[in-house]
Amino acid sequence: MVAPLRVGIAGLGTVGAEVVRLIESRASALASRCGRPVRVIAVTARTKAKKRSLDLRGIAWAKDPHQLAENPDVDCLVELIGGAGEPALSAIETALKAGKSVVTANKALIAKHGLRLAKAAEAHGATLNFEAAVGAAIPIVKTLREGLAGTSINRVYGILNGTCNYILTRMEKEGLSFDECLKDAQRLGYAEADPSFDVDGHDTAQKLAILSSLAFGTKVAENAIYVEGISSITPEDLRAASDLGYRVKLLGVAVRTAKGIEQRVHPTMVPKSSSIAQVMDVTNAVTVDGEGIPPMTLVGPGAGGAATASAVVADIADVARGVRVSPFGRPVEQLRATEKAPMERHEGGYYIRLMARDFPGTAAAIATRLAEQKISLESIVQRHPNGVDLARSGGKASQVPVILITYATHEDAVYRALKAVQRDKVISGRPQVIRIEKN
Amino acid sequence: MVAPLRVGIAGLGTVGAEVVRLIESRASALASRCGRPVRVIAVTARTKAKKRSLDLRGIAWAKDPHQLAENPDVDCLVELIGGAGEPALSAIETALKAGKSVVTANKALIAKHGLRLAKAAEAHGATLNFEAAVGAAIPIVKTLREGLAGTSINRVYGILNGTCNYILTRMEKEGLSFDECLKDAQRLGYAEADPSFDVDGHDTAQKLAILSSLAFGTKVAENAIYVEGISSITPEDLRAASDLGYRVKLLGVAVRTAKGIEQRVHPTMVPKSSSIAQVMDVTNAVTVDGEGIPPMTLVGPGAGGAATASAVVADIADVARGVRVSPFGRPVEQLRATEKAPMERHEGGYYIRLMARDFPGTAAAIATRLAEQKISLESIVQRHPNGVDLARSGGKASQVPVILITYATHEDAVYRALKAVQRDKVISGRPQVIRIEKN
Repeated sequence: MVAPLRVGIAGLGTVGAEVVRLIESRASALASRCGRPVRVIAVTARTKAKKRSLDLRGIAWAKDPHQLAENPDVDCLVELIGGAGEPALSAIETALKAGKSVVTANKALIAKHGLRLAKAAEAHGATLNFEAAVGAAIPIVKTLREGLAGTSINRVYGILNGTCNYILTRMEKEGLSFDECLKDAQRLGYAEADPSFDVDGHDTAQKLAILSSLAFGTKVAENAIYVEGISSITPEDLRAASDLGYRVKLLGVAVRTAKGIEQRVHPTMVPKSSSIAQVMDVTNAVTVDGEGIPPMTLVGPGAGGAATASAVVADIADVARGVRVSPFGRPVEQLRATEKAPMERHEGGYYIRLMARDFPGTAAAIATRLAEQKISLESIVQRHPNGVDLARSGGKASQVPVILITYATHEDAVYRALKAVQRDKVISGRPQVIRIEKN
Repeated sequence: MVAPLRVGIAGLGTVGAEVVRLIESRASALASRCGRPVRVIAVTARTKAKKRSLDLRGIAWAKDPHQLAENPDVDCLVELIGGAGEPALSAIETALKAGKSVVTANKALIAKHGLRLAKAAEAHGATLNFEAAVGAAIPIVKTLREGLAGTSINRVYGILNGTCNYILTRMEKEGLSFDECLKDAQRLGYAEADPSFDVDGHDTAQKLAILSSLAFGTKVAENAIYVEGISSITPEDLRAASDLGYRVKLLGVAVRTAKGIEQRVHPTMVPKSSSIAQVMDVTNAVTVDGEGIPPMTLVGPGAGGAATASAVVADIADVARGVRVSPFGRPVEQLRATEKAPMERHEGGYYIRLMARDFPGTAAAIATRLAEQKISLESIVQRHPNGVDLARSGGKASQVPVILITYATHEDAVYRALKAVQRDKVISGRPQVIRIEKN
C-alpha cells in the first residue's frame, strides 16, 4: 500500500475533535476510498491541558500552528482555528510554501485572503481545499468547482446563514418580532451574544463571495457585495408575503447581468413553491441556475461539528487521493475583477409596504406616483389592520397598510416613486421595501 | 500549456450533440478549469448521413464505436449509445483495456456490467466516470464517491424517475387516475410507448443499485432490489395521504439495517414537510442521511439533453484534470456482496386502505386483528365515500373506506393481520398497502 497521508490538525474545538475522531473511526473506509491510509500525526490547540474526550496518545503536540505547519512529517495541514487573520493565515501560508496541502473550514480567511493563499498554493504545487467554509457538509464548493465545470452558470443563490433562517422561520410561524426571535436564538445557542455578523448579513456575504468566485471565475471580493440584514423585517411583512404566495429569506445572490456579476445579500421574497422557500430553521440551501438546465438545489445542515467535520474529512480524502484542482476552479491569474453591484440599477420585482393615511384617494395617489416611474403593479392590497378590507370597514382606521407587488423594474425608479409619495404626505413612517427573486 | 485531452464520442443523439456543442462553446472555460484544452477529435453514430445541426468539420468519423475505442489518438471515450449490451459494452471495455478513460451516461450498462467495467478500469489504470447515469446534472455520484468520503452513510433515498413523479404529481393535484396521467405523460413525451420500465420501478432500481454501491461499498446488484411500481396507486390513496400529512412518491431506498443493506423501490408515503415531498413533476431528488448529521437533499433535473450533457462534460473535465477515483469509490475487490432484502422482515410504518363492509363493529374487527399482531395504530379513519364521517351519515353506504396508519412494525405482521381480516369477511377487494418512510 502507498505511504499514508500524514495530517496535522490546528484547532481542537468541536470540529477539530470530530475530525480526529472521524479519521480514527473511519480509518479502513478512508484507506479503501483513498487508496492509502490517512493518519493524524500531530495536533495543536490553544491549551494543551484542557480536558478533551479525545485519545491523543501517539499523536505529537506542536507548540503552535506555525510549528505544525513547518513539521516535515506533516503532508497536509488542517486549519480549524478560525478568524480572518493570525495565527491561521501565516500557518496556512507556511504550509503551502513548503508544498504541503491545506484543508480549512475558515470562511472568513478564504473570503479575505483566499486569492493570496490560492496563489501560494499554485506557486508551490499544493492544494487548498475549503468545502466546509460554505454550507458545512453540503458539497457546494465541489459542485461548483468540479461538478458543473461543463456548464455556464447564470445565477447562484442561497440561504447561507442558519441563524437568520431560524429567526425568519420562527417569526413567520409564530408571528413574533425580530427581537423576540433573536433572543430565543441566543438562548438556544443559534446566535452569538453580538449577533450583528449574522443578522446584518456579513456571514452570508463572506460565503457568497466564495461561491461567486467558484461559479463565475471572478476574484473573491467581499467588498463588491451589497449587504443588507434582516433586522427591519416585521411579522406583518411575513404575513403579507405569505398572503401573496411568497416567503421571506435572507439570500446571498450572485447573478450574471449585462453589466457584470451582481452580488448581493438582502432579505428576499421567494415564491412559496420554490425549493429554497421550503428550507426552514437552521438548514442551509444553495440553488444553481446553469445555462439551459432547470435549477438545481442542494439542501442540508449549514453548520454543526459533525457536518463541518464531514466536509473537512472529504477534503482530506481528496488530498490523499492526489486530486489537484485550482482552489477557485481556475488559475488565480485568470480570475476576473468584479465591481460592486450598483443596486440603484438592480432590476427585479419589489414588495413595498406603506402605512397610508386613511382618506379617500390615498391608494390612487400612490399608484399614480408608481405609474409616473413606469412601474407596473402585479398587485395592490389595502387592508384594515385587523385584516378587514378597508372598503368594508368604513375607513375608521387613521392609517392603513398598503402592500404593493411590482413587476420587474429598476430600483432607482422605486425609490424615486417612494420619494414622491412621501412628498405627497399620504404615508407615514419609512416605506418597507423587499426585493423579489423569481425562480 | 499541457497537451489537450482528445475526446471521442460514440452516439450523437440529443445528449451527444449537446456534449459536442458544450465542449466547443465552453472551450476556454474548460481549458482554464482543467489546465489543458479539451477537444473532440472523433465521433461515431448509427448513420453518418443524418441531418444534424452540428458542425463536424475537423472531427474524424469512426465507422463504429469499436473503431473509435481503438483509435490511438483518442484519450477519452464518451459512450452515449445507451443500452445494457452491445455495442456499448465492448466499446467501453476495449477503451479501458487500452488504458483510455471512459465517460458514460449509460445507467443500464453500469447497473448490469459496472463491476466488470470497473475491474477493467482498475487493471489498466483508466478512469470510468458515470455522473450522468443517475439524476443527470445532479452531482449525486460525485457527492457519494468523493464529497461524503468522510461520512458513514445510514440511508440514501430518492425520486429517481421523472415519469413516475410526473404521474404522481398530476394524480395528486388533479385527482386523475393513473391511466389518465400515464396517457398524458406519453402524449407529452415524458413516458415511453411501453411505459413499464419506468412505471414498474425498474429504471429507479437500476439507478438505486448504482447509488447503493457508492454509498455503502456494496457490489452493484440490481437483482438484490425489491421492486414495486406505481400502477396500483389510486387518487383516493393520494387524497387520504394528504389528509394525514403525507404525500406518495416512488422512492428508491437503500438503508443500513442490522441485517445488511436493504434496497427497495416502491411507492412510499413521505411526510409533507420533508424535502423530498416538495419535489414535483419530472424533477428528481436524492436525500442522504450521514451518521450524526442532518439529512442532505440534492434536487434538480433528472433527465434532458442539456442536463445530461452538463454531467458528461464535468466527468470529461475530471479526466482532463487527471482526477483518479475508483469508479465505485473503492477498489472492486473490496466491495461487499448484498442479498435481496427480505421484505417480509422490513420494519416501518404502513398505510393501509381497506374497503370495509358497512355494519357495526367492522372497524373494531379490523383493529382487533391488527392488535393480535402487536401492531399499534397511529390513526384509523373510517369515512363515508363522500367525506362525511360514517357515524354522522347514519351508516347508509354498503361499503366504506377505512384508512389505517400503523406505527413501525414488521411487514409479515401486517400481511398476517390483513389475511385474518379477509377471513373475517369484513372487507371486500384487495387491501392497499403503502410503506411509510420517515425523514
